[in-house]
Amino acid sequence: MSKSKDILNVGVLGLGTVGGGVVSALQSSPELFESRSGKHIKVVAACVRNPNKNRSAIAMNFPITSNPFDIVEDPKIDLVLELIGGVEPARRLVLTALNNGKNVVTANKALLAVHGEEIFRLAAEKNCFVGYEAAVAGGIPIIKVIREGLVANKITKLHGIINGTCNYILTGMEKHQSAFDDILIEAQQKGFAEEDPSFDIGGIDAAHKLTILASLLFKIPLELDKISVVGIADVELEDINYAKKLGYKIKHLAVAEKSENGVELRVGPALVPETDMLSKVDEEMNAIRLEGNLLGPLLMSGAGAGAGPTASSVLSDIVDSIRNSKLEWASVITNNSDNEPSSDLVITAEQTIASAFYYRLVASNEPGMLASITNILAANNISIEAVIQDEEGKKADRVPILIVTEKIKQRQADATRLALSEMPGIFSPVKQFRVK
Amino acid sequence: MSKSKDILNVGVLGLGTVGGGVVSALQSSPELFESRSGKHIKVVAACVRNPNKNRSAIAMNFPITSNPFDIVEDPKIDLVLELIGGVEPARRLVLTALNNGKNVVTANKALLAVHGEEIFRLAAEKNCFVGYEAAVAGGIPIIKVIREGLVANKITKLHGIINGTCNYILTGMEKHQSAFDDILIEAQQKGFAEEDPSFDIGGIDAAHKLTILASLLFKIPLELDKISVVGIADVELEDINYAKKLGYKIKHLAVAEKSENGVELRVGPALVPETDMLSKVDEEMNAIRLEGNLLGPLLMSGAGAGAGPTASSVLSDIVDSIRNSKLEWASVITNNSDNEPSSDLVITAEQTIASAFYYRLVASNEPGMLASITNILAANNISIEAVIQDEEGKKADRVPILIVTEKIKQRQADATRLALSEMPGIFSPVKQFRVK
Repeated sequence: MSKSKDILNVGVLGLGTVGGGVVSALQSSPELFESRSGKHIKVVAACVRNPNKNRSAIAMNFPITSNPFDIVEDPKIDLVLELIGGVEPARRLVLTALNNGKNVVTANKALLAVHGEEIFRLAAEKNCFVGYEAAVAGGIPIIKVIREGLVANKITKLHGIINGTCNYILTGMEKHQSAFDDILIEAQQKGFAEEDPSFDIGGIDAAHKLTILASLLFKIPLELDKISVVGIADVELEDINYAKKLGYKIKHLAVAEKSENGVELRVGPALVPETDMLSKVDEEMNAIRLEGNLLGPLLMSGAGAGAGPTASSVLSDIVDSIRNSKLEWASVITNNSDNEPSSDLVITAEQTIASAFYYRLVASNEPGMLASITNILAANNISIEAVIQDEEGKKADRVPILIVTEKIKQRQADATRLALSEMPGIFSPVKQFRVK
Repeated sequence: MSKSKDILNVGVLGLGTVGGGVVSALQSSPELFESRSGKHIKVVAACVRNPNKNRSAIAMNFPITSNPFDIVEDPKIDLVLELIGGVEPARRLVLTALNNGKNVVTANKALLAVHGEEIFRLAAEKNCFVGYEAAVAGGIPIIKVIREGLVANKITKLHGIINGTCNYILTGMEKHQSAFDDILIEAQQKGFAEEDPSFDIGGIDAAHKLTILASLLFKIPLELDKISVVGIADVELEDINYAKKLGYKIKHLAVAEKSENGVELRVGPALVPETDMLSKVDEEMNAIRLEGNLLGPLLMSGAGAGAGPTASSVLSDIVDSIRNSKLEWASVITNNSDNEPSSDLVITAEQTIASAFYYRLVASNEPGMLASITNILAANNISIEAVIQDEEGKKADRVPILIVTEKIKQRQADATRLALSEMPGIFSPVKQFRVK
């Protein structure tokens, strides 16, 4: 390997939105990156699916290949940017790059959430750097803040809006008073939702990111299957409007929280009080709030996706790989150290942390209905904060009813939903969301 | 010098709130810091004014001195924590520590704002690290985020709420509908305001922090005297309430912004729209919003002072000093490089960036008054967004009048205030605040 001391040779896998943004930023301000990193960061090769595609935003002054192994096996390349996404062949390419002693920067949350352990173990063994700032919350430097800025803190809690598509849709439904499906189409047209949006609106993408964050925060394994995952397809405009009347906004929240028994992880729609700054994070914006034992709460909000924001994070990882080149980057995902005592925390699949719950149901408009409902709740040992019969929303013989409970556990909440669903005189499926 | 490879020997100047917080955190979780930094961080000496004071929160298992030079000249000390504040003797102590090859971590914004150039020049010469995360916005890791997380960005704009005392007082005035002086006393009792609060409420403290931030953001010299500094003493409860009616909150904002002619820096009260997340940052909380060319806006909000938050930042600097010990930390304040081309930006004392302005005045309650006022504004070429005569606030022959202009420059705004003040039939001093 003939690696220059003053040049960092970068090979890029994927020249799509993010890859194009990174190369374009490097080409437009080479002196900025050289002065701030100490090296000339040079793109020396890229792999693309279609070499003939017109890429007007960047100067194609480097060779192009359609075989990714040309990149990860190229001895002159110091650092591989993995921006193709998906699990395979990304996994095999990253492992090959590490095996060849190359540093890796990736924006691939799915890959890390599923195969992170394998990747970071190999990186430690090969003394290579794996940067993944862009994999979580786009341009928000949350990984750096957790690992370095809050290094002195034990983090007890995280609340995040970390899927821009969900947030864009929920915000749009309220703003335009439109149904879910209409806003989804608009989001797709504007590029805020994928053609196949199921990973985003189903909560999987947020779960991927939460897995990575939780592993970092609590030094626990990456265990995607222990996360309680709910998407936003169940949120209707009525819920958004009722929530507003009650003083809340519905947000798709990712939550990691220490409980008595371990760590609980969940993603799903939740009613966030309007007094909470997270409720003000709208459109495609992301935000994360952490609670540290020394610092208290820290909120960060910014763009969670897009060419510029993602490139911003990818580039900061590249610079970090240079700045910290003499440090051991072993097990980066666990706060940069092999020596840290293993956490005795486990992810508990059961959600035991109590919170208030919101229910919406449609009942037959007959006397005694509210009494029957409150009796069911009382029988389940649930205290009520509010029960509202929406007289304005009455239609023929049906009336919408809203309930906000005091703090209860998920188990109690599920039992309550079941009991309410089975009540005579209840028509629709009973909606149930957590209140943050 | 007998410095161990595995131990970082720390000498502490000042064991007050912050110093006590740092030592207490180190003592309560030594294994956490060792695993995350790679060294055992050991407090080996401290200097205090009163050695006999009871310090129950920390184990005094290290020698105490009342002569700070015992610390900065002690050959076994690797890193000096300067937590005594003020300009002298802090400056002399920091320079001595650097001259003796020691790294320095400080929370002293006044020192850096005034003598930063001298300190960072010496640090570069001696190849020493100077950490100052705690000097700006307390626990918010803003320095790290600017220097590292946003390293790929050119920052165009910064808006910050960076003085907790001002924010606490402004929030308290609104919440309790109290006068400035009453809330100031409460803030002093709660420890959110100093006994002599003039640096805070006069805007000097915010100006110190803004000087440091601007130097870092724009690679410009530390020039405190080029900042337009206004405190909050001029903000009355009426202004806060009128602002609310108009859809704003009054916040003490620090602003750094690129203009056509250079960089403009100002601190002062401003009306922030209620739709802006900065308007939701209340009590003693701080927040900073940056705009990067790649990232777009990034908002960070958290505790700006207090033992825990400040210790969080001090400790992350200490860990950074270890992690990056092999890197050149030259000219840290200008994004970690000697090589970066000097900025051609200058701080322009004249404020040329236009914004809307708010005026409050009390006029004689006679016919034609509003017409006279609008004529004066028209004569000064000022378009008006709103003029409101507050009929409810009428007292005897006097009536309050509020004006919000379209975007104008500071020069025009000052001329307008003067013209309004000199109008016949205007009683009080004319209040004038920027609208963010």
